[in-house]
Amino acid sequence: MPDNLCPTERFTDYSSFTEHLANCKKMQEYPKPLAKLITELQKLPTIGQKTAQRLAFFMLKLPDTETAQIAKAISEVKQLLSYCNVCGMITDTNPCYICTSPRRNPQILCVVEESDDLWAIERTNGYKGLYHVLGGVLSPLDGVGPEQLRIKLLFERLQSSRHAPGIKEVILATNWTTEGQATALYLTQHLERFEMTVTRIAYGIPVGGDLEYIDEVTLAKALEGRRKV
Amino acid sequence: MPDNLCPTERFTDYSSFTEHLANCKKMQEYPKPLAKLITELQKLPTIGQKTAQRLAFFMLKLPDTETAQIAKAISEVKQLLSYCNVCGMITDTNPCYICTSPRRNPQILCVVEESDDLWAIERTNGYKGLYHVLGGVLSPLDGVGPEQLRIKLLFERLQSSRHAPGIKEVILATNWTTEGQATALYLTQHLERFEMTVTRIAYGIPVGGDLEYIDEVTLAKALEGRRKV
Repeated sequence: MPDNLCPTERFTDYSSFTEHLANCKKMQEYPKPLAKLITELQKLPTIGQKTAQRLAFFMLKLPDTETAQIAKAISEVKQLLSYCNVCGMITDTNPCYICTSPRRNPQILCVVEESDDLWAIERTNGYKGLYHVLGGVLSPLDGVGPEQLRIKLLFERLQSSRHAPGIKEVILATNWTTEGQATALYLTQHLERFEMTVTRIAYGIPVGGDLEYIDEVTLAKALEGRRKV
Repeated sequence: MPDNLCPTERFTDYSSFTEHLANCKKMQEYPKPLAKLITELQKLPTIGQKTAQRLAFFMLKLPDTETAQIAKAISEVKQLLSYCNVCGMITDTNPCYICTSPRRNPQILCVVEESDDLWAIERTNGYKGLYHVLGGVLSPLDGVGPEQLRIKLLFERLQSSRHAPGIKEVILATNWTTEGQATALYLTQHLERFEMTVTRIAYGIPVGGDLEYIDEVTLAKALEGRRKV
């Protein structure tokens, strides 16, 4: 009985027709706060229209206390966190727990791009030295030069530890991208004057990787970096 | 030079060894507010550890105003929305815009489980009647009886419209689940006394579906519900 469902309307002119269309459109709309939440959630990566809707509907059904907790966690993550004055890592204490730890080896310094990279290295549980977070990579096209990164602070840190029994080795652990490589190269050149060992993390076959399926650059790097057994 | 990286520690007894493990574990931890956000995000459906981490890192890099907006949208969605007193739909105005619309056909009432179902029907743009949202389905095992749903309110609504030129047809649009079917059956039996047309939405092959790949129940339903062309 579709005739009953949508009453036929007579459009005497174009304006009444557009008005009808606007009304049709309006009827499809969610309540404003819900529509706003769906729009906001879509700003996040990997979340499209459908996922945003599913998440929003789920939040609607959660108890008030739970949604309040989520909202609080999101706003607090920006309010309570800052950058460590020493290493530049995102932290809730200043200096961070790594810089202040007595169990850390202060002779080794690992230079990474972002805090995420630092945490990835921490998860290996195999590195016990200190860190320096650059806060990005050199990218002249995007207007990111050495001044925009924490490079000057790195030099100051190395300078001040030259006389005291300080840093003996700097590990460059920037990513294998054009910008990451350029940053590593820039640092290598400028670290020469500190007369420290400067190393780059090893590139090669990932553990469990099959030679047959490894890309050429990685394989070439693995051959180049071969070690005596 | 792995010897440099992780200083060998001598464990004289078991307690110093467990202490060392606890310290190792502690070092892997994110700053508290970040860890809390990751935990909170994991409560949401389809979001696991990795996605929660990615979302949290993304939010860390967003400007303060953006994260504040997301947090506000989440808390407001519960604060500003309520259930329509008439139809039970989630709305920011009471009664909702559908119940108050003069363009709606008040002679047809579509009964759905949740507001999401209502919005799904609205998106078809083909239904111009009113709605009644049950707020769930009958599920005795979960302690959901007719009293927990908006079924009494439905009966009252139908009762009051029996004498006035009111509702002439009730469309049962609950989902095809055991509970949804049971709810539809329950309503069918109790709606007999109102002497209205009671219909169930059609089940059959989805538009664009291929007979070869359709499950048997759907195909049987499609044959059963065949219509004269």
